[in-house]
Amino acid sequence: MARGRVVIVGAGPGDPELITVKGLNYLKKADVVVYDRLVPLELLSKVKSGAELIYVGKEPGRHIYTQDEINNLLYVKALEGSLVVRLKGGDPYNFGRGEEECIFLLERGVECIVVPGIPSYVGASVYSGIPLTSRGVSSSFAVITGREAEGKKRRINIEGIAAVVDTLVVLMGVSSLPDILVRVSKIVGWNRPAAVVMNATTRSQHTIAGDLKVLMNAWFEGRISNPAVIFVGEVVRLRDRLWRFE
Amino acid sequence: MARGRVVIVGAGPGDPELITVKGLNYLKKADVVVYDRLVPLELLSKVKSGAELIYVGKEPGRHIYTQDEINNLLYVKALEGSLVVRLKGGDPYNFGRGEEECIFLLERGVECIVVPGIPSYVGASVYSGIPLTSRGVSSSFAVITGREAEGKKRRINIEGIAAVVDTLVVLMGVSSLPDILVRVSKIVGWNRPAAVVMNATTRSQHTIAGDLKVLMNAWFEGRISNPAVIFVGEVVRLRDRLWRFE
Repeated sequence: MARGRVVIVGAGPGDPELITVKGLNYLKKADVVVYDRLVPLELLSKVKSGAELIYVGKEPGRHIYTQDEINNLLYVKALEGSLVVRLKGGDPYNFGRGEEECIFLLERGVECIVVPGIPSYVGASVYSGIPLTSRGVSSSFAVITGREAEGKKRRINIEGIAAVVDTLVVLMGVSSLPDILVRVSKIVGWNRPAAVVMNATTRSQHTIAGDLKVLMNAWFEGRISNPAVIFVGEVVRLRDRLWRFE
Repeated sequence: MARGRVVIVGAGPGDPELITVKGLNYLKKADVVVYDRLVPLELLSKVKSGAELIYVGKEPGRHIYTQDEINNLLYVKALEGSLVVRLKGGDPYNFGRGEEECIFLLERGVECIVVPGIPSYVGASVYSGIPLTSRGVSSSFAVITGREAEGKKRRINIEGIAAVVDTLVVLMGVSSLPDILVRVSKIVGWNRPAAVVMNATTRSQHTIAGDLKVLMNAWFEGRISNPAVIFVGEVVRLRDRLWRFE
């Protein structure tokens, strides 16, 4: 029996039409689709009839599948001879752990290729009218995760990063938002323009924009929830002059 | 006569199948397509018959259209009642000046929407096997332009950025590469893993990987040319274990 293979596909930030043409083509041909919590569900209706759909979403505090179990599932399904599409929110190599899955498979002799996707922060940027860069305003940006990487001893140097880049992007930072805002504000001041974009590029996209103080108040009022992308920098001011999805 | 509108579409990094489904749909409906040097030419064959194709690519040292002229062209074509697709390489809000064009149009009452694209560095990352992040290796990255923004007095603090992020990405940095490498090496040392990916995601993609020293030597030997994306950080080491397009 011919051995199958795995295609790790970035589904993009939420709007189902923001998947790439290449990613959609693989999805339509898949025998098995292994998908996460944050992939647009509309995409699942594109698979061929008879394809097997397996949900392996992780939710905070409630892991349905561990990463090891996902790796093994992809491996086993490929050994069965299937074309397996591993559909992940955003881009597989932007805080997506796609590289862990790809390494696991290649080391075991299973063919694996990767299709990039629009990262959540790129979608959030365009759909909320906050460019990552702009001539004379921002020529550098950094992206960090608010949730510290598990098993990693070194903390992210948020203060250091906030001090040197024009635009700071924080992903998965809602639970630790007050800590992040305090640390960033020490460097750039509470009046620094800032915004949080929730459910970016979906029909329920919602943005709160102002400065770091506005975000802190919104957090205390319970108005900020995951999934959220946080932007800090002068580019937030351009929002009123740009196209927005909302 | 009905007034037209402009859709600014990110064409992605080079592989024509890495455009989004949404971007391709607009391209197929366009009456006028205004396109740059770095968009995949295969995409131009997707436009409907009779559509007008206008090349406004800028090349280093030889500007065919200035940014003002491009803005005006989009405006005039929209006033004629056309659906104008402004097709840009990568993502419009990642060093793409899409925000300048959108602001110009909206201020003059012309409808303008924006469709994100896969940025060049995301495509280069996946297709060269260099993830931007990886658990235990990189939980932060920064993206800067090697070519300093025109008219901007403040230089990018490359040393400061190199000191605080796990992965550093430099775009459009070939002409000033020795200066960049010297400045970065002062902070992280010449043995820091580094790679340059040229013509990312196209059939002529070519990667030189090693450390900062290897890149410096390659530059002096004339083996590095634009368009190129430079990665500096431990993630470069993962390349040998991951899928690569080359």
